[in-house]
Amino acid sequence: MQKLRCVAIVGVGLIGASLGMALRRKGLAERVVGIGRRHSSLRIARQAGAVTSATVNLANGVARAELIVVCSPVGKIVEHVRLAAEHAPEGTLITDAGSAKRSIVETVGTKLARGCRFVGSHPIAGSEKSGPEHATADLFEGRLVAVTPTRNTREEDCTFLERFWSGLGSVVVRMSPAEHDRALAVTSHLPHAVAVVLAGTLPEKYFPLVGTGFLDTSRLAGGSPQLWTDIFSTNRRNVARALAQFEKRIAALRAAVLDDNPRRLERIFTEAKKNRDALGS
Amino acid sequence: MQKLRCVAIVGVGLIGASLGMALRRKGLAERVVGIGRRHSSLRIARQAGAVTSATVNLANGVARAELIVVCSPVGKIVEHVRLAAEHAPEGTLITDAGSAKRSIVETVGTKLARGCRFVGSHPIAGSEKSGPEHATADLFEGRLVAVTPTRNTREEDCTFLERFWSGLGSVVVRMSPAEHDRALAVTSHLPHAVAVVLAGTLPEKYFPLVGTGFLDTSRLAGGSPQLWTDIFSTNRRNVARALAQFEKRIAALRAAVLDDNPRRLERIFTEAKKNRDALGS
Repeated sequence: MQKLRCVAIVGVGLIGASLGMALRRKGLAERVVGIGRRHSSLRIARQAGAVTSATVNLANGVARAELIVVCSPVGKIVEHVRLAAEHAPEGTLITDAGSAKRSIVETVGTKLARGCRFVGSHPIAGSEKSGPEHATADLFEGRLVAVTPTRNTREEDCTFLERFWSGLGSVVVRMSPAEHDRALAVTSHLPHAVAVVLAGTLPEKYFPLVGTGFLDTSRLAGGSPQLWTDIFSTNRRNVARALAQFEKRIAALRAAVLDDNPRRLERIFTEAKKNRDALGS
Repeated sequence: MQKLRCVAIVGVGLIGASLGMALRRKGLAERVVGIGRRHSSLRIARQAGAVTSATVNLANGVARAELIVVCSPVGKIVEHVRLAAEHAPEGTLITDAGSAKRSIVETVGTKLARGCRFVGSHPIAGSEKSGPEHATADLFEGRLVAVTPTRNTREEDCTFLERFWSGLGSVVVRMSPAEHDRALAVTSHLPHAVAVVLAGTLPEKYFPLVGTGFLDTSRLAGGSPQLWTDIFSTNRRNVARALAQFEKRIAALRAAVLDDNPRRLERIFTEAKKNRDALGS
Protein backbone atom coordinates (compact mmCIF):
# COMPACT_ATOMS: atom_id res chain seq x y z
CA MET A 1 0.00 0.00 0.00
CA GLN A 2 0.97 3.66 -0.44
CA LYS A 3 3.12 5.12 2.32
CA LEU A 4 1.03 7.05 4.86
CA ARG A 5 2.23 10.43 5.98
CA CYS A 6 1.11 10.16 9.58
CA VAL A 7 -0.38 7.34 11.64
CA ALA A 8 -1.45 8.06 15.23
CA ILE A 9 -1.40 5.13 17.65
CA VAL A 10 -3.42 5.64 20.81
CA GLY A 11 -2.02 3.33 23.48
CA VAL A 12 1.58 2.12 23.19
CA GLY A 13 1.35 -1.21 25.00
CA LEU A 14 2.37 -4.53 23.43
CA ILE A 15 0.03 -4.13 20.42
CA GLY A 16 0.42 -0.39 19.86
CA ALA A 17 4.21 -0.39 20.11
CA SER A 18 4.49 -3.52 17.93
CA LEU A 19 2.28 -1.82 15.35
CA GLY A 20 4.54 1.23 15.33
CA MET A 21 7.65 -0.92 14.95
CA ALA A 22 6.07 -2.88 12.10
CA LEU A 23 4.92 0.28 10.28
CA ARG A 24 8.40 1.78 10.49
CA ARG A 25 10.23 -1.44 9.61
CA LYS A 26 8.03 -1.90 6.54
CA GLY A 27 8.31 1.76 5.57
CA LEU A 28 4.51 2.13 5.58
CA ALA A 29 4.35 5.40 7.50
CA GLU A 30 6.52 8.50 7.40
CA ARG A 31 5.56 9.52 10.92
CA VAL A 32 4.15 7.44 13.73
CA VAL A 33 2.79 9.43 16.67
CA GLY A 34 2.49 7.45 19.88
CA ILE A 35 -0.12 8.64 22.37
CA GLY A 36 -0.07 7.25 25.90
CA ARG A 37 -0.95 8.01 29.46
CA ARG A 38 2.46 7.38 30.97
CA HIS A 39 5.68 9.07 30.01
CA SER A 40 7.56 5.89 30.96
CA SER A 41 5.74 3.77 28.34
CA LEU A 42 6.15 6.45 25.72
CA ARG A 43 9.87 6.63 26.43
CA ILE A 44 10.20 2.84 25.99
CA ALA A 45 8.20 3.01 22.75
CA ARG A 46 10.40 5.79 21.40
CA GLN A 47 13.60 4.04 22.40
CA ALA A 48 12.38 0.86 20.70
CA GLY A 49 11.86 2.82 17.49
CA ALA A 50 8.11 2.21 17.62
CA VAL A 51 7.16 5.88 17.24
CA THR A 52 8.74 8.97 15.71
CA SER A 53 7.13 11.25 18.26
CA ALA A 54 5.22 10.74 21.48
CA THR A 55 2.74 12.69 23.56
CA VAL A 56 0.39 12.27 26.51
CA ASN A 57 -1.98 14.73 24.85
CA LEU A 58 -4.41 12.84 22.64
CA ALA A 59 -5.76 16.01 20.99
CA ASN A 60 -2.31 17.10 19.85
CA GLY A 61 -1.27 13.59 18.91
CA VAL A 62 -4.08 12.96 16.42
CA ALA A 63 -4.14 16.50 14.95
CA ARG A 64 -2.35 15.55 11.71
CA ALA A 65 -3.19 11.86 11.52
CA GLU A 66 -4.18 10.25 8.25
CA LEU A 67 -5.18 7.10 10.13
CA ILE A 68 -5.75 6.58 13.85
CA VAL A 69 -5.37 3.13 15.43
CA VAL A 70 -6.72 2.92 18.97
CA CYS A 71 -4.74 0.20 20.76
CA SER A 72 -6.04 1.00 24.24
CA PRO A 73 -7.43 -1.65 26.61
CA VAL A 74 -10.91 -2.79 25.53
CA GLY A 75 -12.63 -0.81 28.31
CA LYS A 76 -11.12 2.47 27.06
CA ILE A 77 -11.53 2.09 23.31
CA VAL A 78 -14.90 3.84 22.86
CA GLU A 79 -13.80 6.86 24.90
CA HIS A 80 -10.53 7.14 22.98
CA VAL A 81 -12.19 6.78 19.56
CA ARG A 82 -14.62 9.60 20.39
CA LEU A 83 -11.91 11.83 21.77
CA ALA A 84 -9.69 11.15 18.77
CA ALA A 85 -12.52 12.07 16.37
CA GLU A 86 -12.99 15.41 18.09
CA HIS A 87 -9.42 16.44 17.40
CA ALA A 88 -8.53 14.61 14.20
CA PRO A 89 -8.49 16.17 10.72
CA GLU A 90 -11.95 16.24 9.09
CA GLY A 91 -13.09 12.79 7.90
CA THR A 92 -10.22 10.75 9.38
CA LEU A 93 -10.59 6.97 9.45
CA ILE A 94 -10.24 5.46 12.92
CA THR A 95 -9.80 1.77 13.75
CA ASP A 96 -8.89 -0.15 16.88
CA ALA A 97 -7.26 -3.42 17.93
CA GLY A 98 -9.72 -4.65 20.58
CA SER A 99 -10.44 -8.32 21.25
CA ALA A 100 -14.21 -7.79 21.44
CA LYS A 101 -16.02 -5.91 18.72
CA ARG A 102 -19.81 -5.76 18.82
CA SER A 103 -20.26 -3.62 21.89
CA ILE A 104 -17.48 -1.25 20.81
CA VAL A 105 -18.75 -0.88 17.24
CA GLU A 106 -22.35 -0.35 18.42
CA THR A 107 -21.43 2.11 21.16
CA VAL A 108 -19.20 4.18 18.89
CA GLY A 109 -22.05 4.19 16.36
CA THR A 110 -22.00 6.16 13.12
CA LYS A 111 -22.06 9.70 14.43
CA LEU A 112 -18.48 10.66 15.20
CA ALA A 113 -17.28 14.25 15.45
CA ARG A 114 -15.85 16.03 12.39
CA GLY A 115 -17.15 13.42 9.95
CA CYS A 116 -14.66 10.84 11.18
CA ARG A 117 -15.47 7.18 10.55
CA PHE A 118 -14.78 4.12 12.68
CA VAL A 119 -14.30 0.54 11.45
CA GLY A 120 -13.26 -2.12 13.99
CA SER A 121 -10.17 -4.29 13.59
CA HIS A 122 -8.79 -7.09 15.70
CA PRO A 123 -5.28 -8.41 15.07
CA ILE A 124 -5.37 -11.94 16.51
CA ALA A 125 -1.85 -11.64 17.78
CA GLY A 126 -0.36 -10.99 21.15
CA SER A 127 0.95 -12.90 24.08
CA GLU A 128 0.45 -13.24 27.80
CA LYS A 129 2.96 -10.41 28.15
CA SER A 130 1.99 -6.78 27.98
CA GLY A 131 3.74 -3.43 27.71
CA PRO A 132 5.90 -1.83 25.00
CA GLU A 133 9.01 -3.57 26.40
CA HIS A 134 7.71 -6.82 24.86
CA ALA A 135 6.83 -5.30 21.48
CA THR A 136 8.24 -6.84 18.29
CA ALA A 137 8.09 -5.64 14.70
CA ASP A 138 6.93 -9.07 13.48
CA LEU A 139 4.01 -9.50 15.89
CA PHE A 140 1.51 -9.29 13.01
CA GLU A 141 3.52 -11.31 10.49
CA GLY A 142 1.43 -14.26 9.27
CA ARG A 143 -1.25 -13.55 11.89
CA LEU A 144 -4.92 -13.15 11.25
CA VAL A 145 -6.59 -9.76 11.49
CA ALA A 146 -10.36 -9.51 11.59
CA VAL A 147 -11.85 -6.37 10.05
CA THR A 148 -15.45 -5.95 11.19
CA PRO A 149 -17.55 -3.67 8.97
CA THR A 150 -21.26 -3.01 9.54
CA ARG A 151 -24.00 -2.13 7.05
CA ASN A 152 -22.94 1.51 7.36
CA THR A 153 -19.27 0.98 6.61
CA ARG A 154 -18.00 2.44 3.35
CA GLU A 155 -16.45 -0.15 1.10
CA GLU A 156 -13.36 2.03 0.52
CA ASP A 157 -12.69 2.24 4.28
CA CYS A 158 -12.88 -1.51 4.60
CA THR A 159 -10.57 -2.03 1.62
CA PHE A 160 -8.17 0.55 2.99
CA LEU A 161 -7.92 -1.28 6.33
CA GLU A 162 -7.54 -4.63 4.61
CA ARG A 163 -4.57 -3.24 2.68
CA PHE A 164 -3.17 -1.63 5.81
CA TRP A 165 -3.08 -4.89 7.80
CA SER A 166 -1.98 -6.94 4.78
CA GLY A 167 0.91 -4.52 4.38
CA LEU A 168 2.07 -5.58 7.86
CA GLY A 169 2.16 -9.21 6.77
CA SER A 170 -1.20 -10.21 8.25
CA VAL A 171 -3.92 -12.32 6.71
CA VAL A 172 -7.13 -10.31 6.76
CA VAL A 173 -10.61 -11.76 7.20
CA ARG A 174 -13.78 -9.71 7.00
CA MET A 175 -16.60 -10.55 9.39
CA SER A 176 -19.44 -8.83 11.20
CA PRO A 177 -18.78 -7.64 14.77
CA ALA A 178 -21.30 -10.19 16.09
CA GLU A 179 -19.72 -13.08 14.17
CA HIS A 180 -16.32 -11.99 15.39
CA ASP A 181 -17.41 -12.00 19.02
CA ARG A 182 -19.07 -15.42 18.80
CA ALA A 183 -15.95 -16.89 17.21
CA LEU A 184 -13.43 -15.23 19.52
CA ALA A 185 -15.38 -16.33 22.59
CA VAL A 186 -14.49 -19.88 21.54
CA THR A 187 -11.05 -19.42 19.98
CA SER A 188 -9.57 -16.91 22.42
CA HIS A 189 -11.69 -16.07 25.47
CA LEU A 190 -12.53 -19.70 26.31
CA PRO A 191 -8.89 -20.88 26.33
CA HIS A 192 -8.07 -17.87 28.48
CA ALA A 193 -10.79 -18.83 30.96
CA VAL A 194 -9.61 -22.43 31.00
CA ALA A 195 -6.00 -21.42 31.65
CA VAL A 196 -7.13 -19.10 34.44
CA VAL A 197 -9.19 -21.74 36.19
CA LEU A 198 -6.42 -24.31 35.80
CA ALA A 199 -3.76 -22.02 37.26
CA GLY A 200 -6.08 -20.66 39.94
CA THR A 201 -7.05 -24.14 41.14
CA LEU A 202 -3.51 -25.42 41.65
CA PRO A 203 -2.65 -25.89 45.34
CA GLU A 204 0.77 -24.52 46.26
CA LYS A 205 2.02 -27.90 47.43
CA TYR A 206 1.72 -29.14 43.85
CA PHE A 207 3.76 -26.32 42.28
CA PRO A 208 6.97 -28.42 42.22
CA LEU A 209 5.15 -31.27 40.43
CA VAL A 210 4.15 -29.23 37.42
CA GLY A 211 5.60 -30.22 34.03
CA THR A 212 5.66 -28.61 30.60
CA GLY A 213 2.08 -29.77 29.90
CA PHE A 214 0.60 -27.81 32.77
CA LEU A 215 2.77 -24.82 31.88
CA ASP A 216 1.55 -24.74 28.28
CA THR A 217 -2.08 -25.29 29.17
CA SER A 218 -2.09 -22.54 31.81
CA ARG A 219 0.24 -20.05 30.06
CA LEU A 220 -2.54 -17.55 29.21
CA ALA A 221 -3.32 -17.09 32.91
CA GLY A 222 -0.20 -14.88 33.06
CA GLY A 223 -2.07 -12.21 31.07
CA SER A 224 -3.15 -8.89 32.52
CA PRO A 225 -6.15 -9.27 34.88
CA GLN A 226 -7.47 -5.80 34.01
CA LEU A 227 -7.25 -6.27 30.26
CA TRP A 228 -9.03 -9.60 30.46
CA THR A 229 -11.71 -8.44 32.86
CA ASP A 230 -12.57 -5.79 30.26
CA ILE A 231 -12.60 -8.32 27.42
CA PHE A 232 -14.81 -10.79 29.30
CA SER A 233 -17.23 -8.04 30.39
CA THR A 234 -17.45 -6.68 26.86
CA ASN A 235 -18.20 -10.09 25.33
CA ARG A 236 -19.95 -11.60 28.32
CA ARG A 237 -22.92 -13.34 26.70
CA ASN A 238 -20.76 -15.20 24.19
CA VAL A 239 -18.14 -16.02 26.81
CA ALA A 240 -20.78 -17.39 29.17
CA ARG A 241 -22.23 -19.52 26.36
CA ALA A 242 -18.82 -20.91 25.44
CA LEU A 243 -18.13 -21.71 29.11
CA ALA A 244 -21.49 -23.48 29.49
CA GLN A 245 -20.75 -25.68 26.47
CA PHE A 246 -17.29 -26.39 27.77
CA GLU A 247 -18.69 -27.42 31.19
CA LYS A 248 -20.99 -29.92 29.48
CA ARG A 249 -18.12 -31.46 27.55
CA ILE A 250 -15.96 -31.72 30.67
CA ALA A 251 -18.88 -33.42 32.43
CA ALA A 252 -19.21 -35.87 29.53
CA LEU A 253 -15.52 -36.69 29.72
CA ARG A 254 -15.83 -37.16 33.48
CA ALA A 255 -18.73 -39.57 32.94
CA ALA A 256 -16.64 -41.59 30.47
CA VAL A 257 -13.80 -41.72 33.03
CA LEU A 258 -16.09 -42.77 35.89
CA ASP A 259 -17.90 -45.39 33.79
CA ASP A 260 -14.49 -46.83 32.98
CA ASN A 261 -15.45 -46.78 29.35
CA PRO A 262 -12.10 -46.92 27.52
CA ARG A 263 -13.70 -47.05 24.10
CA ARG A 264 -15.65 -43.82 24.69
CA LEU A 265 -12.58 -42.20 26.24
CA GLU A 266 -10.38 -43.15 23.34
CA ARG A 267 -12.96 -41.76 20.91
CA ILE A 268 -12.95 -38.41 22.73
CA PHE A 269 -9.13 -38.33 22.70
CA THR A 270 -8.99 -39.31 19.03
CA GLU A 271 -11.44 -36.62 17.90
CA ALA A 272 -9.54 -33.99 19.86
CA LYS A 273 -6.21 -35.14 18.42
CA LYS A 274 -7.59 -34.92 14.90
CA ASN A 275 -8.58 -31.28 15.48
CA ARG A 276 -5.37 -30.39 17.29
CA ASP A 277 -3.15 -31.96 14.63
CA ALA A 278 -5.04 -30.00 11.96
CA LEU A 279 -4.26 -26.73 13.77
CA GLY A 280 -0.48 -27.19 13.56
CA SER A 281 2.10 -26.15 16.12
CA MET B 1 26.57 -43.01 40.70
CA GLN B 2 28.66 -46.03 39.76
CA LYS B 3 28.51 -47.08 36.14
CA LEU B 4 26.04 -49.92 35.59
CA ARG B 5 27.12 -52.86 33.48
CA CYS B 6 23.75 -53.47 31.83
CA VAL B 7 20.43 -51.63 31.89
CA ALA B 8 17.46 -53.15 30.08
CA ILE B 9 14.80 -50.76 28.81
CA VAL B 10 11.46 -52.36 28.01
CA GLY B 11 9.67 -50.11 25.50
CA VAL B 12 11.70 -47.76 23.31
CA GLY B 13 9.18 -44.98 22.72
CA LEU B 14 9.86 -41.34 23.56
CA ILE B 15 10.66 -42.04 27.22
CA GLY B 16 12.53 -45.32 26.80
CA ALA B 17 14.70 -44.11 23.92
CA SER B 18 15.42 -40.79 25.66
CA LEU B 19 16.44 -42.73 28.77
CA GLY B 20 18.85 -44.83 26.75
CA MET B 21 20.34 -41.76 25.09
CA ALA B 22 20.76 -40.04 28.46
CA LEU B 23 22.38 -43.12 30.07
CA ARG B 24 24.87 -43.40 27.26
CA ARG B 25 25.58 -39.66 27.00
CA LYS B 26 26.25 -39.51 30.75
CA GLY B 27 28.32 -42.69 30.67
CA LEU B 28 26.08 -44.28 33.32
CA ALA B 29 25.67 -47.67 31.66
CA GLU B 30 28.12 -49.83 29.74
CA ARG B 31 25.36 -51.61 27.85
CA VAL B 32 21.79 -50.53 27.21
CA VAL B 33 19.51 -53.24 25.87
CA GLY B 34 16.38 -51.97 24.16
CA ILE B 35 13.39 -54.28 24.13
CA GLY B 36 10.45 -53.46 21.89
CA ARG B 37 7.59 -54.99 19.95
CA ARG B 38 8.43 -53.50 16.61
CA HIS B 39 11.68 -53.87 14.70
CA SER B 40 11.10 -50.42 13.18
CA SER B 41 11.15 -48.66 16.58
CA LEU B 42 14.18 -50.67 17.69
CA ARG B 43 16.02 -49.69 14.54
CA ILE B 44 15.31 -46.00 15.14
CA ALA B 45 16.43 -46.35 18.78
CA ARG B 46 19.66 -48.01 17.72
CA GLN B 47 20.36 -45.48 15.00
CA ALA B 48 19.78 -42.68 17.51
CA GLY B 49 22.37 -44.22 19.80
CA ALA B 50 19.75 -44.90 22.48
CA VAL B 51 20.65 -48.59 22.89
CA THR B 52 23.75 -50.72 22.37
CA SER B 53 21.66 -53.76 21.43
CA ALA B 54 18.02 -54.36 20.66
CA THR B 55 15.64 -57.29 20.70
CA VAL B 56 11.95 -58.10 20.41
CA ASN B 57 12.47 -60.96 22.87
CA LEU B 58 11.91 -59.66 26.40
CA ALA B 59 13.28 -62.82 28.04
CA ASN B 60 16.60 -62.55 26.20
CA GLY B 61 16.75 -58.79 26.63
CA VAL B 62 16.60 -58.80 30.42
CA ALA B 63 18.76 -61.91 30.96
CA ARG B 64 21.87 -59.95 32.07
CA ALA B 65 20.28 -56.76 33.33
CA GLU B 66 21.45 -55.12 36.54
CA LEU B 67 18.47 -52.77 36.40
CA ILE B 68 15.29 -53.00 34.32
CA VAL B 69 13.27 -49.90 33.45
CA VAL B 70 9.84 -50.64 32.00
CA CYS B 71 8.89 -47.70 29.76
CA SER B 72 5.88 -49.37 28.19
CA PRO B 73 2.45 -47.70 27.94
CA VAL B 74 0.69 -47.63 31.33
CA GLY B 75 -1.71 -50.44 30.36
CA LYS B 76 1.20 -52.82 29.65
CA ILE B 77 3.50 -52.08 32.59
CA VAL B 78 2.29 -54.75 35.04
CA GLU B 79 2.50 -57.49 32.42
CA HIS B 80 6.01 -56.42 31.36
CA VAL B 81 7.28 -56.13 34.95
CA ARG B 82 6.11 -59.68 35.71
CA LEU B 83 7.55 -61.06 32.51
CA ALA B 84 10.85 -59.26 33.08
CA ALA B 85 11.11 -60.71 36.61
CA GLU B 86 10.67 -64.24 35.28
CA HIS B 87 13.73 -63.93 33.06
CA ALA B 88 15.96 -61.46 34.90
CA PRO B 89 18.97 -62.42 37.03
CA GLU B 90 18.00 -63.37 40.60
CA GLY B 91 17.03 -60.36 42.73
CA THR B 92 17.07 -57.73 39.98
CA LEU B 93 15.55 -54.32 40.73
CA ILE B 94 12.82 -53.28 38.31
CA THR B 95 11.27 -49.84 37.96
CA ASP B 96 8.98 -48.18 35.43
CA ALA B 97 8.16 -44.75 34.03
CA GLY B 98 4.36 -44.79 34.13
CA SER B 99 2.21 -41.68 34.73
CA ALA B 100 -0.10 -43.44 37.20
CA LYS B 101 1.35 -45.42 40.07
CA ARG B 102 -1.04 -46.80 42.70
CA SER B 103 -2.81 -49.40 40.60
CA ILE B 104 0.47 -50.53 39.02
CA VAL B 105 2.34 -50.80 42.32
CA GLU B 106 -0.55 -52.63 43.99
CA THR B 107 -1.12 -55.03 41.11
CA VAL B 108 2.55 -55.90 40.79
CA GLY B 109 2.61 -56.47 44.55
CA THR B 110 5.59 -57.84 46.45
CA LYS B 111 5.79 -61.36 45.06
CA LEU B 112 7.78 -61.19 41.85
CA ALA B 113 9.52 -64.18 40.31
CA ARG B 114 13.16 -64.93 41.14
CA GLY B 115 13.27 -62.57 44.11
CA CYS B 116 13.07 -59.53 41.87
CA ARG B 117 11.80 -56.29 43.42
CA PHE B 118 9.71 -53.50 41.91
CA VAL B 119 9.70 -49.82 42.91
CA GLY B 120 7.67 -47.38 40.83
CA SER B 121 9.16 -44.26 39.21
CA HIS B 122 7.61 -41.50 37.17
CA PRO B 123 9.78 -39.03 35.30
CA ILE B 124 7.55 -35.98 34.88
CA ALA B 125 8.92 -35.25 31.46
CA GLY B 126 7.64 -35.86 28.00
CA SER B 127 5.76 -34.08 25.31
CA GLU B 128 2.69 -34.45 23.18
CA LYS B 129 4.91 -36.31 20.73
CA SER B 130 5.65 -40.00 21.02
CA GLY B 131 8.01 -42.51 19.49
CA PRO B 132 11.80 -42.92 19.56
CA GLU B 133 12.16 -40.46 16.65
CA HIS B 134 11.39 -37.62 19.10
CA ALA B 135 13.75 -38.85 21.81
CA THR B 136 16.40 -36.50 23.23
CA ALA B 137 19.25 -37.16 25.65
CA ASP B 138 18.28 -34.15 27.78
CA LEU B 139 14.61 -35.07 28.29
CA PHE B 140 15.19 -35.66 32.02
CA GLU B 141 17.56 -32.76 32.61
CA GLY B 142 16.17 -30.53 35.34
CA ARG B 143 12.87 -32.46 35.35
CA LEU B 144 11.17 -33.94 38.35
CA VAL B 145 11.10 -37.69 38.88
CA ALA B 146 8.77 -39.17 41.48
CA VAL B 147 9.96 -42.39 43.13
CA THR B 148 7.07 -44.11 44.86
CA PRO B 149 8.07 -46.61 47.56
CA THR B 150 5.60 -48.54 49.70
CA ARG B 151 5.95 -49.91 53.23
CA ASN B 152 7.56 -53.00 51.74
CA THR B 153 10.21 -51.18 49.71
CA ARG B 154 13.81 -51.67 50.84
CA GLU B 155 15.50 -48.40 51.66
CA GLU B 156 18.56 -49.35 49.55
CA ASP B 157 16.37 -49.87 46.46
CA CYS B 158 14.79 -46.48 46.92
CA THR B 159 18.18 -44.81 47.40
CA PHE B 160 19.55 -46.61 44.36
CA LEU B 161 16.72 -45.30 42.17
CA GLU B 162 17.07 -41.80 43.54
CA ARG B 163 20.76 -41.85 42.57
CA PHE B 164 19.91 -43.33 39.18
CA TRP B 165 17.49 -40.55 38.23
CA SER B 166 19.65 -37.83 39.82
CA GLY B 167 22.51 -39.08 37.67
CA LEU B 168 20.41 -38.22 34.63
CA GLY B 169 20.05 -34.64 35.81
CA SER B 170 16.59 -35.03 37.34
CA VAL B 171 15.31 -33.71 40.65
CA VAL B 172 13.94 -36.67 42.60
CA VAL B 173 11.00 -36.52 44.98
CA ARG B 174 9.84 -39.47 47.09
CA MET B 175 6.12 -39.93 47.58
CA SER B 176 3.63 -42.73 48.11
CA PRO B 177 1.88 -44.14 45.02
CA ALA B 178 -1.46 -42.76 46.28
CA GLU B 179 -0.06 -39.26 46.90
CA HIS B 180 1.53 -39.36 43.47
CA ASP B 181 -1.73 -40.22 41.75
CA ARG B 182 -3.72 -37.54 43.58
CA ALA B 183 -1.12 -34.92 42.66
CA LEU B 184 -0.67 -35.98 39.04
CA ALA B 185 -4.43 -36.04 38.48
CA VAL B 186 -4.29 -32.27 39.08
CA THR B 187 -0.89 -31.35 37.62
CA SER B 188 -0.90 -33.57 34.54
CA HIS B 189 -4.11 -35.47 33.84
CA LEU B 190 -6.42 -32.48 34.37
CA PRO B 191 -4.55 -30.19 31.94
CA HIS B 192 -4.59 -33.04 29.45
CA ALA B 193 -8.37 -33.39 29.83
CA VAL B 194 -8.84 -29.66 29.48
CA ALA B 195 -6.74 -29.50 26.31
CA VAL B 196 -8.66 -32.44 24.86
CA VAL B 197 -12.06 -30.89 25.52
CA LEU B 198 -10.89 -27.53 24.18
CA ALA B 199 -9.54 -29.03 20.94
CA GLY B 200 -12.46 -31.43 20.57
CA THR B 201 -15.04 -28.65 20.93
CA LEU B 202 -13.61 -26.39 18.24
CA PRO B 203 -15.86 -26.20 15.15
CA GLU B 204 -13.94 -26.50 11.90
CA LYS B 205 -15.13 -23.10 10.68
CA TYR B 206 -13.15 -21.52 13.53
CA PHE B 207 -9.84 -23.26 12.75
CA PRO B 208 -8.48 -20.25 10.81
CA LEU B 209 -9.26 -17.91 13.73
CA VAL B 210 -7.07 -19.72 16.22
CA GLY B 211 -4.10 -17.84 17.66
CA THR B 212 -1.08 -18.83 19.74
CA GLY B 213 -3.18 -18.80 22.93
CA PHE B 214 -5.51 -21.54 21.73
CA LEU B 215 -2.56 -23.50 20.37
CA ASP B 216 -0.72 -23.45 23.71
CA THR B 217 -3.80 -24.25 25.76
CA SER B 218 -4.79 -27.20 23.56
CA ARG B 219 -1.28 -28.52 22.75
CA LEU B 220 -1.58 -31.64 24.95
CA ALA B 221 -4.55 -32.85 22.90
CA GLY B 222 -2.00 -33.92 20.27
CA GLY B 223 -0.88 -36.74 22.57
CA SER B 224 -1.51 -40.40 21.87
CA PRO B 225 -5.18 -41.37 22.45
CA GLN B 226 -4.24 -44.91 23.50
CA LEU B 227 -1.57 -43.87 25.98
CA TRP B 228 -3.91 -41.36 27.58
CA THR B 229 -6.90 -43.68 27.68
CA ASP B 230 -4.72 -46.05 29.71
CA ILE B 231 -3.54 -43.30 32.05
CA PHE B 232 -7.05 -41.98 32.68
CA SER B 233 -8.42 -45.49 33.27
CA THR B 234 -5.59 -46.33 35.65
CA ASN B 235 -6.09 -43.17 37.71
CA ARG B 236 -9.80 -42.75 37.13
CA ARG B 237 -11.06 -41.84 40.61
CA ASN B 238 -8.53 -39.06 41.06
CA VAL B 239 -9.04 -37.82 37.51
CA ALA B 240 -12.83 -37.73 37.97
CA ARG B 241 -12.42 -35.81 41.24
CA ALA B 242 -10.09 -33.27 39.63
CA LEU B 243 -12.54 -32.83 36.74
CA ALA B 244 -15.47 -32.32 39.12
CA GLN B 245 -13.59 -29.58 40.99
CA PHE B 246 -12.59 -27.98 37.74
CA GLU B 247 -16.22 -27.95 36.54
CA LYS B 248 -17.26 -26.13 39.71
CA ARG B 249 -14.60 -23.49 39.21
CA ILE B 250 -15.57 -22.98 35.58
CA ALA B 251 -19.19 -22.59 36.68
CA ALA B 252 -18.12 -20.00 39.27
CA LEU B 253 -16.23 -18.06 36.61
CA ARG B 254 -19.27 -18.25 34.32
CA ALA B 255 -21.46 -16.86 37.11
CA ALA B 256 -19.06 -13.93 37.59
CA VAL B 257 -19.16 -13.27 33.84
CA LEU B 258 -22.97 -13.45 33.66
CA ASP B 259 -23.46 -11.28 36.76
CA ASP B 260 -21.24 -8.70 35.07
CA ASN B 261 -19.21 -8.54 38.26
CA PRO B 262 -15.89 -7.06 37.14
CA ARG B 263 -14.47 -6.98 40.64
CA ARG B 264 -15.04 -10.71 41.16
CA LEU B 265 -13.73 -11.45 37.68
CA GLU B 266 -10.59 -9.44 38.24
CA ARG B 267 -10.00 -11.22 41.56
CA ILE B 268 -10.21 -14.61 39.81
CA PHE B 269 -7.80 -13.43 37.10
CA THR B 270 -5.41 -11.94 39.65
CA GLU B 271 -5.24 -15.09 41.80
CA ALA B 272 -4.61 -17.21 38.72
CA LYS B 273 -1.89 -14.85 37.49
CA LYS B 274 -0.16 -14.99 40.87
CA ASN B 275 0.00 -18.79 40.66
CA ARG B 276 0.99 -18.84 37.00
CA ASP B 277 3.75 -16.28 37.45
CA ALA B 278 5.12 -18.34 40.35
CA LEU B 279 5.38 -21.40 38.09
CA GLY B 280 7.71 -19.70 35.60
CA SER B 281 7.81 -20.23 31.84
